Amino acid sequence: METPKRRRSATRARLLEGALDVFAERGFNGASVEDICERAGFTRGAFYSNFASKDELVLALFQATTDRLLEQIAALLPGLADQPGTLLDAVLGLLDDAAPDRRQWHLISTEFTLHALRHAEAAEALNQQRKMFRERLTALVEEISAAGELRMSVPPEQFVRLVIALHEGARSQSLLEPTEVPAGSLEHLFLPMVLEAISRPTEGVSRP
Amino acid sequence: METPKRRRSATRARLLEGALDVFAERGFNGASVEDICERAGFTRGAFYSNFASKDELVLALFQATTDRLLEQIAALLPGLADQPGTLLDAVLGLLDDAAPDRRQWHLISTEFTLHALRHAEAAEALNQQRKMFRERLTALVEEISAAGELRMSVPPEQFVRLVIALHEGARSQSLLEPTEVPAGSLEHLFLPMVLEAISRPTEGVSRP
Repeated sequence: METPKRRRSATRARLLEGALDVFAERGFNGASVEDICERAGFTRGAFYSNFASKDELVLALFQATTDRLLEQIAALLPGLADQPGTLLDAVLGLLDDAAPDRRQWHLISTEFTLHALRHAEAAEALNQQRKMFRERLTALVEEISAAGELRMSVPPEQFVRLVIALHEGARSQSLLEPTEVPAGSLEHLFLPMVLEAISRPTEGVSRP
Repeated sequence: METPKRRRSATRARLLEGALDVFAERGFNGASVEDICERAGFTRGAFYSNFASKDELVLALFQATTDRLLEQIAALLPGLADQPGTLLDAVLGLLDDAAPDRRQWHLISTEFTLHALRHAEAAEALNQQRKMFRERLTALVEEISAAGELRMSVPPEQFVRLVIALHEGARSQSLLEPTEVPAGSLEHLFLPMVLEAISRPTEGVSRP
């Protein structure tokens, strides 16, 4: 039997799903709450009983995607914790598949970042969310370093920032030139080199 | 004495300058040709005798900035062609100083890229321009490799794509978190490692 709670959660999911389409078509600034409600088939009342604002909806979209991604990464760990290179490749693959639609995802995540650069409150909320994501990834890198008895020559958080920066910058190129820059190609080519360069075995023992 | 040609060029320069402010405030989509004219103190007629469209004006802005950047890089070459690492650091410094205002530059270049992802004609023009820029940078990397008798283990164009992707992705982080990510910090930390990893002396001679 459908409970009010379950109905509410289904409404929320449909609003989130419809919003992605609307944002991709009209842009974050161009899309109104009415547009999103119309696409999902709900009233403004339904929207506002789930989200305080369009900003809050976008942040909920980001949260859902990063939560799913972190879960998928955690599932890889038991088998690959002692193979940093292979794990890195697998994580990069997940980054590209985390969103239901790469192009739509790039549009809304980039647009909301630009919105944040113009609105301090949005910047604070976005930074907070990105920080939590980075901290989870950093903890993961530290866990893997420990498992492989490696010492990194740079703070692990800097490596995580590099992965995110390169992923976001490369996505732009691969969407503009899909043939020349297949999704993930720059990341898969260069990030393992960096990982190798910053990883040193502990106790100065040279690796085989 | 002011010639018609010189007057036209001054009009063009003032339109370009005023446009940057207007785009930063209202976004590429939100800024109208009227807004840009009003800011620069010209009529629509003056605008259209210089640019066929808002797209063309943005592409002219990009062209002026990349031309200036390529000139500055070329000026570095005579002194640093045999020191790839130092030259890379210097080029990264120029990348950050090429635009009159980093934040404004990031806003318009990112917004126009998003615009291109929604409009095929803009994508074609932008890709053409970015391609010319990459080719000039690639030729430079090849020149430096030859001067240093290095052989790169990846196509030089891929390294150029990496520099651009990381620069664009990192700029977003450094604008959102200026204290945590000083401009250029990720590039200066990681790109020299990649350059080192992909550079091999020719003829298998190990470097000192």
